Amino acid sequence: MAYRDEKLHEEKVFKDPVHRYIHVRDRVIWDLIGTPEFQRLRRIKQLGTTYLTFHGAEHSRFNHSLGVYEIVRRIIENFRDQPFWDDDERILCLCAALLHDLGHGPFSHSFEKVFDLDHEDFTRAIILGDTKVNEILRRVDENFPQDVADVIHKTYSNKLVVSLISSQIDADRMDYLQRDAYFTGVSYGHFDMERILRVMRPMEDQMVIKESGMHAVEDYIMSRYQMYWQVYFHPVTRSAEVILSKILHRAKELYMANEYEFKLKPTHFESFFLKEVSLEDYLKLDENVVFYYFHIWKEEEDAILSDLCRRFVDRDLFKYIEFDPGNQYRELMDLKECFNEAGVDPIYYLEVDSSSDLPYDFYRPGEEEERLPIHLQLPTGELKELSRQSDIVESISGKKRTDHKLYFAKDLIEQLPEESDIKKRIYEILKG
Amino acid sequence: MAYRDEKLHEEKVFKDPVHRYIHVRDRVIWDLIGTPEFQRLRRIKQLGTTYLTFHGAEHSRFNHSLGVYEIVRRIIENFRDQPFWDDDERILCLCAALLHDLGHGPFSHSFEKVFDLDHEDFTRAIILGDTKVNEILRRVDENFPQDVADVIHKTYSNKLVVSLISSQIDADRMDYLQRDAYFTGVSYGHFDMERILRVMRPMEDQMVIKESGMHAVEDYIMSRYQMYWQVYFHPVTRSAEVILSKILHRAKELYMANEYEFKLKPTHFESFFLKEVSLEDYLKLDENVVFYYFHIWKEEEDAILSDLCRRFVDRDLFKYIEFDPGNQYRELMDLKECFNEAGVDPIYYLEVDSSSDLPYDFYRPGEEEERLPIHLQLPTGELKELSRQSDIVESISGKKRTDHKLYFAKDLIEQLPEESDIKKRIYEILKG
Amino acid sequence: MAYRDEKLHEEKVFKDPVHRYIHVRDRVIWDLIGTPEFQRLRRIKQLGTTYLTFHGAEHSRFNHSLGVYEIVRRIIENFRDQPFWDDDERILCLCAALLHDLGHGPFSHSFEKVFDLDHEDFTRAIILGDTKVNEILRRVDENFPQDVADVIHKTYSNKLVVSLISSQIDADRMDYLQRDAYFTGVSYGHFDMERILRVMRPMEDQMVIKESGMHAVEDYIMSRYQMYWQVYFHPVTRSAEVILSKILHRAKELYMANEYEFKLKPTHFESFFLKEVSLEDYLKLDENVVFYYFHIWKEEEDAILSDLCRRFVDRDLFKYIEFDPGNQYRELMDLKECFNEAGVDPIYYLEVDSSSDLPYDFYRPGEEEERLPIHLQLPTGELKELSRQSDIVESISGKKRTDHKLYFAKDLIEQLPEESDIKKRIYEILKG
Amino acid sequence: MAYRDEKLHEEKVFKDPVHRYIHVRDRVIWDLIGTPEFQRLRRIKQLGTTYLTFHGAEHSRFNHSLGVYEIVRRIIENFRDQPFWDDDERILCLCAALLHDLGHGPFSHSFEKVFDLDHEDFTRAIILGDTKVNEILRRVDENFPQDVADVIHKTYSNKLVVSLISSQIDADRMDYLQRDAYFTGVSYGHFDMERILRVMRPMEDQMVIKESGMHAVEDYIMSRYQMYWQVYFHPVTRSAEVILSKILHRAKELYMANEYEFKLKPTHFESFFLKEVSLEDYLKLDENVVFYYFHIWKEEEDAILSDLCRRFVDRDLFKYIEFDPGNQYRELMDLKECFNEAGVDPIYYLEVDSSSDLPYDFYRPGEEEERLPIHLQLPTGELKELSRQSDIVESISGKKRTDHKLYFAKDLIEQLPEESDIKKRIYEILKG
Repeated sequence: MAYRDEKLHEEKVFKDPVHRYIHVRDRVIWDLIGTPEFQRLRRIKQLGTTYLTFHGAEHSRFNHSLGVYEIVRRIIENFRDQPFWDDDERILCLCAALLHDLGHGPFSHSFEKVFDLDHEDFTRAIILGDTKVNEILRRVDENFPQDVADVIHKTYSNKLVVSLISSQIDADRMDYLQRDAYFTGVSYGHFDMERILRVMRPMEDQMVIKESGMHAVEDYIMSRYQMYWQVYFHPVTRSAEVILSKILHRAKELYMANEYEFKLKPTHFESFFLKEVSLEDYLKLDENVVFYYFHIWKEEEDAILSDLCRRFVDRDLFKYIEFDPGNQYRELMDLKECFNEAGVDPIYYLEVDSSSDLPYDFYRPGEEEERLPIHLQLPTGELKELSRQSDIVESISGKKRTDHKLYFAKDLIEQLPEESDIKKRIYEILKG
Repeated sequence: MAYRDEKLHEEKVFKDPVHRYIHVRDRVIWDLIGTPEFQRLRRIKQLGTTYLTFHGAEHSRFNHSLGVYEIVRRIIENFRDQPFWDDDERILCLCAALLHDLGHGPFSHSFEKVFDLDHEDFTRAIILGDTKVNEILRRVDENFPQDVADVIHKTYSNKLVVSLISSQIDADRMDYLQRDAYFTGVSYGHFDMERILRVMRPMEDQMVIKESGMHAVEDYIMSRYQMYWQVYFHPVTRSAEVILSKILHRAKELYMANEYEFKLKPTHFESFFLKEVSLEDYLKLDENVVFYYFHIWKEEEDAILSDLCRRFVDRDLFKYIEFDPGNQYRELMDLKECFNEAGVDPIYYLEVDSSSDLPYDFYRPGEEEERLPIHLQLPTGELKELSRQSDIVESISGKKRTDHKLYFAKDLIEQLPEESDIKKRIYEILKG
Repeated sequence: MAYRDEKLHEEKVFKDPVHRYIHVRDRVIWDLIGTPEFQRLRRIKQLGTTYLTFHGAEHSRFNHSLGVYEIVRRIIENFRDQPFWDDDERILCLCAALLHDLGHGPFSHSFEKVFDLDHEDFTRAIILGDTKVNEILRRVDENFPQDVADVIHKTYSNKLVVSLISSQIDADRMDYLQRDAYFTGVSYGHFDMERILRVMRPMEDQMVIKESGMHAVEDYIMSRYQMYWQVYFHPVTRSAEVILSKILHRAKELYMANEYEFKLKPTHFESFFLKEVSLEDYLKLDENVVFYYFHIWKEEEDAILSDLCRRFVDRDLFKYIEFDPGNQYRELMDLKECFNEAGVDPIYYLEVDSSSDLPYDFYRPGEEEERLPIHLQLPTGELKELSRQSDIVESISGKKRTDHKLYFAKDLIEQLPEESDIKKRIYEILKG
Repeated sequence: MAYRDEKLHEEKVFKDPVHRYIHVRDRVIWDLIGTPEFQRLRRIKQLGTTYLTFHGAEHSRFNHSLGVYEIVRRIIENFRDQPFWDDDERILCLCAALLHDLGHGPFSHSFEKVFDLDHEDFTRAIILGDTKVNEILRRVDENFPQDVADVIHKTYSNKLVVSLISSQIDADRMDYLQRDAYFTGVSYGHFDMERILRVMRPMEDQMVIKESGMHAVEDYIMSRYQMYWQVYFHPVTRSAEVILSKILHRAKELYMANEYEFKLKPTHFESFFLKEVSLEDYLKLDENVVFYYFHIWKEEEDAILSDLCRRFVDRDLFKYIEFDPGNQYRELMDLKECFNEAGVDPIYYLEVDSSSDLPYDFYRPGEEEERLPIHLQLPTGELKELSRQSDIVESISGKKRTDHKLYFAKDLIEQLPEESDIKKRIYEILKG
C-alpha cells in the first residue's frame, strides 16, 4: 500500500484532557509525532510567560499541536461524502494541522520581536529542510512537503483546506481557546465545539457554518474576546515578557560591544545576535536552554544582566501602571531623565508595552492583514457574513482595542533615599 | 502586629484549575511563595517523566504545593472552634503544607535511587539552612523553622498537626490525586473532597472522619488505587525513568574513571557523583539544567552516553515485556549474555523494573514503614479503623501488588542481521 | 434563644448539582422548607413546557428556590464586617430568597396570561395569609411576614437588601441561568459566579461590583442573552404554551357558556374562570392536577378540547413559521378566513406569538419597568454604570429584540383533500 | 426504500445533559419517540421517590430511555465491520434499547410489590398489543414486535444482541449510573464510558471487553456499588416508599371492604385492587394521576388514608433506626403491641424495610437469577471472567449486602403524653 494510505495495525490513542482522546490511525501522522523536531515542541510552553501569572499554564506546544490535529480530523470525518470536499486532501490537512506550529521557538513572542524573526519561516524551513519531518513527508510524495508548507503559509490553491487551519474560526483557535482555558483554570474559553463541528460545511473556497449554529459561534467569538483580555494580555505576563526582552537586549549589547567577558558565553544565541540563524541553530534552542543561560547568568558580573536574569528566574517582576503613550509623551521623557539621574538605566528598567486585539473582523480587501470573515449559510443556501446576522458580533466587529501599560522596576525606585528629590519627582509623575 | 499574625492589606488569589481559587491572606505565606527556593519548584515537574506518556502532565511541583496549602487552609477553617484544635498551630500547618515538597529535585525518583539521596533531607536543609525561606520563617519565631521541619519530618509533638500533611488521607494525597488526574486527563482521581473536608474532625493525635463520610473516603481510596496503576506506574513512564537512570550511571562512570574527556563537563553533577552534595549545589539543579546537559550530551563522543541522551530527549524509549525476576532469573542471565555477545551492553540496554503499591494499610506497629490507619468516628463517638467498616477497603487493605517489567532496547536487537543466531536466541527467550 | 437566632443542632446539607451543597443552619429556614406551601413547589416545573424541547428540563421551582437561598447565604457570608451591611437583615434576606417564587402556579406564564393573574400577588398572599409559612415567619416577629413580602415586592426600605434578590445581577438570575443550563444541558449559562460573589460589595442602596470583576459580569450578561434566545424563547416550547393557553380558553368558554356537559367538571378551575381565585383554590392547583384534567379531557366529547388536550399530553405540537404581524396583517386575516372555510377554527388552531427580551438596560427613570443598572466600583471608589465601562455590554444595552412566530395545526391543513383550493391558498399565504 | 432502512431527511438531535447530544437518523426510531406510549414515560420519574432525598432527581424515564438508545447506537457504530457482528440486527438493537423500560408505571417499585405486578410484562404487552408502538414496529416486519419483545425478555436467539441491553455491563446500567449521578449531583457514578465503548468487542454470544480496558470496568463496578448504597437505597427514599405502599394498601383495604364511602373513588386503581389490570388501564396511570388522588385524598374522612396522603404529598416522612429483623423479632412483636395499645396502628405506622445488592457476580449456573459475568479478552484472544483478573472486583464479587431499617411515625409516638408508660416502653425498645 502507498505510504500515504498506510494505516497502523491498531489505532493509537493519546489521553487528552481537552478532547478526551486523540486518535491516530495513519502511519504518516504517527511517524511525524515521533520525530525529534516534533518532540522538541514539548520543551516550548504554549503560553510563554503566562505560567508566571496563571500557574497552571505550563502546557507545551506539543499538547496544542496534537489538539489541532484532532479537531481537523473530526471536521474531516464529518466532511466525508459532502459536496466540495475532496478526500484526497485528507492527509494533507492532517499533516498541516499537526505541523502548523513546528517553527515556534522558546518564548516566541519576545524572541521574534527582539531578533526580528518570524516563526512561520522556521516552520517552513523545518518542513522543507534537512529534517526527519521532511524525510517522512517526502515518503508520501516528492511535492508533499511543499504542499504542507503552502497550506500553513495560506498559499495553497484549495482555499477550503487553508481555511481549516487559518481562518477566524479554525481548528487552531478552537483548540487553543479551550486548552488555554483548561490549563489556566479560567471559566472563559468554553463554547460548544461539538455543535460547531456539526454545523460546519465545506464550500468551494472556505468552510461555512449553518445558520442554526450561529449562537455557538457567537459564544466562540465571545470566548476569544475574553481570553485575549483576561489571559493572553494579562499585565503580569507582559511584565515577564518585558524583562525577558530586556535580558536578550542586554546580552546582545554586551556581546556585540565585544568588551565584556561572559562567564558563560552566549554560544546558543550568537547566530541570533548576528542575524545569521541557521535551521540547525534554531532547532537547538528550546526553553530549557534559555533557562539554563539565565540561571547561570544570574551570577554574571554585569549588574544589569545578572539582575534581569534573577528577576526572571525568581519571578521578581516589574510593576506597572496605566499609561497613554500618545498623550503622556512628555511624562515619559521626564521619567527617563529622572531614572537616569537616579542611576537606574531607563533602557532596561522602564518600558511602555501595548497590546491590542481585533476580536472579529469582516472583510476589508486590500488591507494589510486581510482576515477572511465567517460566513453563515442560510436555509436557502445563501451565504451571509456573520456580523450581519449577529447583533453581538456586529457590536464588537472591526473594533480594535488597545491597552497600554508602563512597566518599571519599582523596587529600585523605592530603594532611593526617602528624602531624595528624584524619588519624589518620579512618584509625582507616576501618580500623574 | 507580630509578623506571625500579619495579614495582607487585600487577600491575594491564585486561579487554580483544581481548587478554582487559592486564597492567601497571611503575609508569611505570601512572602514564602515569593522566595527563590519556592519559585524553583516551577522548574520541577510534579510527575517526572509521566508527561512522556500522558502529554498533559507537564505541571510542576509549584502547582501542587499551592494546592496542598489550600486544602490545609480549608481544613483548618472548618476546625476553628472545634475541641482538640489549637488555632495557634494554624500558621505552622500552613507553612508546613506549602513547604512539604521544597526539597524535591529534578526527576527526584531517579536521582534519589541513583545517588542515594532523600529529598526530605533537602527539604529540611532548605528550611533550616541559609536560605530566604529560613529567613522568613525565623521572622515568625526563632524556633519556627525547626517546628516546620519537624511537622514535615513527622516528629512534631502534636500528631494531629502531622496528620494533616502525612497520613493515609492527608492534604498532600488529596491534592495530587485530583491534580494529576486533571492534568493527565484520566477519569480516575475524582472523589468528593468537599464532603471529606466537611466530615473531618480533629482528635487528640490525629484527624478522624465522621462515619457518614465513609463512602467518600472509599472513593478516595479507590481513586488512589487506580491512579497508582493507571498513571504513576505506567510502563512507558518507567521506560523513560530507566533511560534517565542509565544516563546518570553512564555519566558518573565516565567521570569517575577519569579517562573520558567530556565535551560538556558535568559540572552541576560532580558533587552528586562524589556524594558531597551541598545545599547550594542542590538548589542549582533543576530540570532545565538537567535537560541542557542531556541536550548537549547527545553529541558526546561516548556512544552510550550520546545514544541514551538522544533517546531521552527525543523520546525514543525502551520496549518492555512482562517479566518475573523471581522465576526467570536464568532467562535474565541468558539474555545478558546474548546482549553482550551481540555487542549491546546489557548494563545500559537491559533492565528489570519493579513497582509496587499498598493501596491502604491498617496499623502494623513495629514494621518498617508504619502507616497510621484512617479512623472513622461512629455516631457514638467511638473510633473504628476504616477497613473494619468498609468491605471494599477491607478487600484491598494490606495487599501489596507488584508489577515487574523487563525493559530493553528492542531497536538495537532488531538491527542485528536477520540470520544471526544471537538475534534468534534473544527473541526466543523474550517470547518465553 | 430567640427563634430568629436559633441554630440547628447540626447543620443540614442538601446535595445540589449546581451549587454542590446547600447549607442550612438556621431553624427558621429549615422549618420553612418543611411547610406544605414550600413543598408544593416540587410539583411545579421551573421551566414550564420547556421539557418538551429540552428533555432534561424537568426540574422544579423547589430546586431553584433552594439555589437562590444558597447564593444569598454565600453573598451575605462575604458581606459580614463590611461597611453598609447590617447583619440584622441576614435572616430577612435568607427568607425572602427562599420564598421569592412561592406564589408560582403550574405553567405560570400561560395561566397568568389567560386568567390575568400575577404570581407575585400570590407570593404575598401566602406569606401574609393563613398558612404554615406565615405561622413560622410570625414566630420570628409579628411584622416579619410583612418585611419578607416587602423585600420580594421591592418596597422594603433597605434597597441593598432588595437588590440581592431583584436587580439585574441578583441571586435569582444567577441561580436560574446556571440551573437551567445544567438541566437542559446547553453549553451557555456558565459564568464564574464564585468570582462575582467575591467582588460584590454592599453599598448604601445596592450591591456593586468591584471593577476587577467586570469581565465575569460581562460573561454573565452574555449567558443571560444566550439563554433567553436559545432556551427560554425556543419556538417549540412556545408552541406547547400556545396549545396550553388554547386548552384553558376552550375549557373556560365551554364552562361559561353553561351548555356543555363535561365528563370531568373543571372543579379546580372554576374560580379561575370566574376570577374569584382564593388562596386556598390557588394552592390546590399544581401541575399534577392540571395534567390529570388534560389526561381525562382527552376523552371529552367536545372535539376541540379533546384534540388540544391530546396534543399537549402526547406532545403533538403546532408547527410554526416566521411571521411579522406588523407587515403581514392582511395575510393573517386571509389565513383566518381560509381556516374558517376549511372548518379548522382559527381561534384555536392559529396564533401569533411574540417574545422579546432586553438583555441589559441602563437606568431610564420614569419608564414603565424601571430596571436598576449594574454599577462597577472603580479602585478610586467612584461608581460607574456597567455599559459605560464594557464595550460588549454597551453594544447590547437597551436593545430590545423581538421574535414573532405564527403557530398553526399543520396536520389539519395537510388532511384537507389534495386538490382543495383552500389548501392551496393556505400554503400560498404561508410560503408568502 | 423499506421502512426499516428509511432515514430522516435530516438527522434529528436532542440536547442531552449526560451524552451531550442524542442522534436520530432512522425513521423508525423517530416515529417511536413520537408515540403516546413513549411520551408517557415523561410522566414517570426515573428514580421514584428519590427526589424527596436528592431534590435534583426529578428526571423521567423518557430521559433515560433516550440515553440507553444513544449508548447502544454508539456501541453498534463501533461494531460495524467487526467479526461476529451482523448489521442486520442494528435496528432491532436500537428499538429494544429505546423501548426496554416502556412498561414502567408510576413508582414501579412500590406498585409492583403491593399489586404483585411485573413491569416487564407490560413492556411486552405494549410492544405486542394494540398500540401505536406496535403499529410502527409492525411496519418494519410482521415479526418485528415479537423480536423486540424477545430481546428485552432476554429470550432472543442472538445472545450478543441481548447482552447489549441486559448484562452486567449493558447500555441500561451505563446510562442510569451516569444519569442518576448527574441529576442527584453526587460525585459517584462517573466512569470512562468512552473508553469502555472503545474496548467492547462483539463475540459469538456476548460482548466482551479488551483487557486493556479492565480498569475502566473496575471503575464502573465501583460506581455501581456506590450508587446503590449512596443513592438507590438511601433510607429517606425508602421511608417515602414505605408510606406510598401503605397508602396503596389502605386504599385497597377500604375499597375491598366495600363499606367506606370515598369522596374521590379510586377509579384508576380499581383494576389493580381486583388484579384485573388491562393494558388500557395500565397506560392511563401515570404519576400525575397518582398524585392527583393523593392530593384529594388528603381530605378523605378515613383518618389513616388522609394522614398517609398528607405525609407523602407534604413530605412528612417516617423516621428510622437500624434494625435486624433476624435477631430482633421479639422486639418487633413488642413494638407492635405497644403501638396497638397506644392507638397507633402498627400495620400502617411501623415497617421493616430491607434492601440488598450484589454489586457484581460471577456465573452461577442454575441459580435463580443467573447473571452473565463480564469477560475480558486477553491479548492472546483468550477470555477470562472479570473477577479473576481484577483484585478489586474479586473482593466484592458474589457478596450480597443487606441493609435493614425499621420505619415508624415518630411524631405520633412523641404526641403521647409525656408520663405515659407506653411511650417509655416504646422508646426503651427503640433504643435497644
